Amino acid sequence: MRVAILAHEQFPDRAKTALGILRYADYDVAAVLDRETAGGQVNDYVPDVQDAPIVAGMDALADDLDALIIGIAPIGGGLEDSWREDIRVALERGCDVISGLHHFLEDDDEFSRLAAEHGGELRDVRKPPEDLTVSEGLAGEVDAEVILTVGTDCSVGKMTTTMELARDARAAGHDAAVIPTGQTGIMIEGWGNPIDRVVSDFTAGAVEEMIREKGDEHDYLFVEGQGSIVHPAYSAVTCGILHGSMPDELVLCHTAGKEVIHGYESFSLPSIQTYVDLYESLAAPVSDADVVAGALNTAGLEDDAAAQAIDEFATELGAPATDVIREDTDDVLESLL
Amino acid sequence: MRVAILAHEQFPDRAKTALGILRYADYDVAAVLDRETAGGQVNDYVPDVQDAPIVAGMDALADDLDALIIGIAPIGGGLEDSWREDIRVALERGCDVISGLHHFLEDDDEFSRLAAEHGGELRDVRKPPEDLTVSEGLAGEVDAEVILTVGTDCSVGKMTTTMELARDARAAGHDAAVIPTGQTGIMIEGWGNPIDRVVSDFTAGAVEEMIREKGDEHDYLFVEGQGSIVHPAYSAVTCGILHGSMPDELVLCHTAGKEVIHGYESFSLPSIQTYVDLYESLAAPVSDADVVAGALNTAGLEDDAAAQAIDEFATELGAPATDVIREDTDDVLESLL
Repeated sequence: MRVAILAHEQFPDRAKTALGILRYADYDVAAVLDRETAGGQVNDYVPDVQDAPIVAGMDALADDLDALIIGIAPIGGGLEDSWREDIRVALERGCDVISGLHHFLEDDDEFSRLAAEHGGELRDVRKPPEDLTVSEGLAGEVDAEVILTVGTDCSVGKMTTTMELARDARAAGHDAAVIPTGQTGIMIEGWGNPIDRVVSDFTAGAVEEMIREKGDEHDYLFVEGQGSIVHPAYSAVTCGILHGSMPDELVLCHTAGKEVIHGYESFSLPSIQTYVDLYESLAAPVSDADVVAGALNTAGLEDDAAAQAIDEFATELGAPATDVIREDTDDVLESLL
Repeated sequence: MRVAILAHEQFPDRAKTALGILRYADYDVAAVLDRETAGGQVNDYVPDVQDAPIVAGMDALADDLDALIIGIAPIGGGLEDSWREDIRVALERGCDVISGLHHFLEDDDEFSRLAAEHGGELRDVRKPPEDLTVSEGLAGEVDAEVILTVGTDCSVGKMTTTMELARDARAAGHDAAVIPTGQTGIMIEGWGNPIDRVVSDFTAGAVEEMIREKGDEHDYLFVEGQGSIVHPAYSAVTCGILHGSMPDELVLCHTAGKEVIHGYESFSLPSIQTYVDLYESLAAPVSDADVVAGALNTAGLEDDAAAQAIDEFATELGAPATDVIREDTDDVLESLL
């Protein structure tokens, strides 16, 4: 599938979805749309992902695309007016448009008319399926070993860690699948339930449904975690994933040097040991799961400092740790598989 | 307002909403509908609430009702086909129908047609307001002391404890309000957000919004808790309420002799001490809150056994405990206020 990724004015640092797709998805990326960095190449900014030209808009691209993907998710999840023209052009060419915004494209009169007229599809990946319900408490019965990434905060690398570990496990010959729980994971994998958007009573159930769907087909399931168990706003989602997935093992994700909760700076992060104790003791009555490895995001640190930070993190955890982007995952996978 | 309460085949033991309304709401209850216990009186089963006849269906009632209330909430929150006839009759008589089911009455073609035709209103109290959003992490800033009921399982008395403590606190001259978070609380209080039905990302935010709305108008807020922090299906809701309400004090609710999670019997309850540790340690990074009292449901026990069970529960907690229905709440309130 040949796609363009819309990331106006936010590529690369604030375009988490675009980067996730460039790094992990099985798409042929024709271009990133960003009117601010237009003229450059993706690899000018991020070397270790699929390269593509950066262009100012859909008009700069040939008529050979299958889909336009909205690759940014602003606070609030709304649709910016300045993106409409590119979406309009894509739909007029018969492309699909794939979006993880809270604002559903299919509720937009103009877009749904254009999609119907030109045969494109509007795919709102953050719209949960209608048939979700409460958990039956059965995720623990699947054959697969379930490995869940948990975090000290949002945006500390849970999705990235999940993708890297699953990829490396497969490369080592294991039968491993990803259980995607957020919009980027869903776009990359092409399926999944957007857990942060389901009815709160169905949080665990929406995870369980995926575990039970895939759990007897694979040896390992890597579940994409969300948020943090002590996040003032998002802990409900984290807790529902923890109990709904009934993990066998946990990987704690953290960003080196992080001290307060992003966007909620009056709340300090507790110690790493406190996170380990909380995740393990909260999981225990439902499924015994230990933190058996760590993933530390060391972006921005020099090599020496990064290596030292990873060592310290591993010592705090009493378990192997790595930066999944910067280093290999051998020790971590050995601890997990 | 004169109402009938539908509780087919579940009155009294599995009709939590019906009982809550009989006990606390300001309605004139004409009858409880239960085809299994029909012919009896409410007080034959539950002595200390508003009495009413139990009848087999709407046909047995005179045409003087204002509303039919759905007084049961099965796991999953669906509408049973065997209730349709009573709802149909109520609507044909021009009654309102008040429901806390996940299945919204207003989405039912037949019911909405009948309501429109005969002038009744369909009131789905579990339908959240459209304007909810993520928590800002500010509930801790209100003037009021926030007291949250937490539980060892669903249906162990969190709503009842909240109502009794708030009522007794007011009777003792304190300025106390209830923050309703579930369908029964909302039906009783006439306002509130159905937390288990909001978008999961907004769980904490939907509680915070209520705390901030009422928190500077009262000295004490009694927040109705939901579920249990180790419930395989509902812990997300529990966790969102814990962090969204940022409580100052917790009251642990439990049912004497309960050993497994209702409906999920393969999961044993951990010890009382484990619950205390989990609730306190999970709250701590967001708001320091200790379990300072306990509420034990001793229904079904003889007086001596009940007194002994309450004593043992208090000892396990290291804090005063009571059965809020059976005994007074003096010691518990002294510990809280």
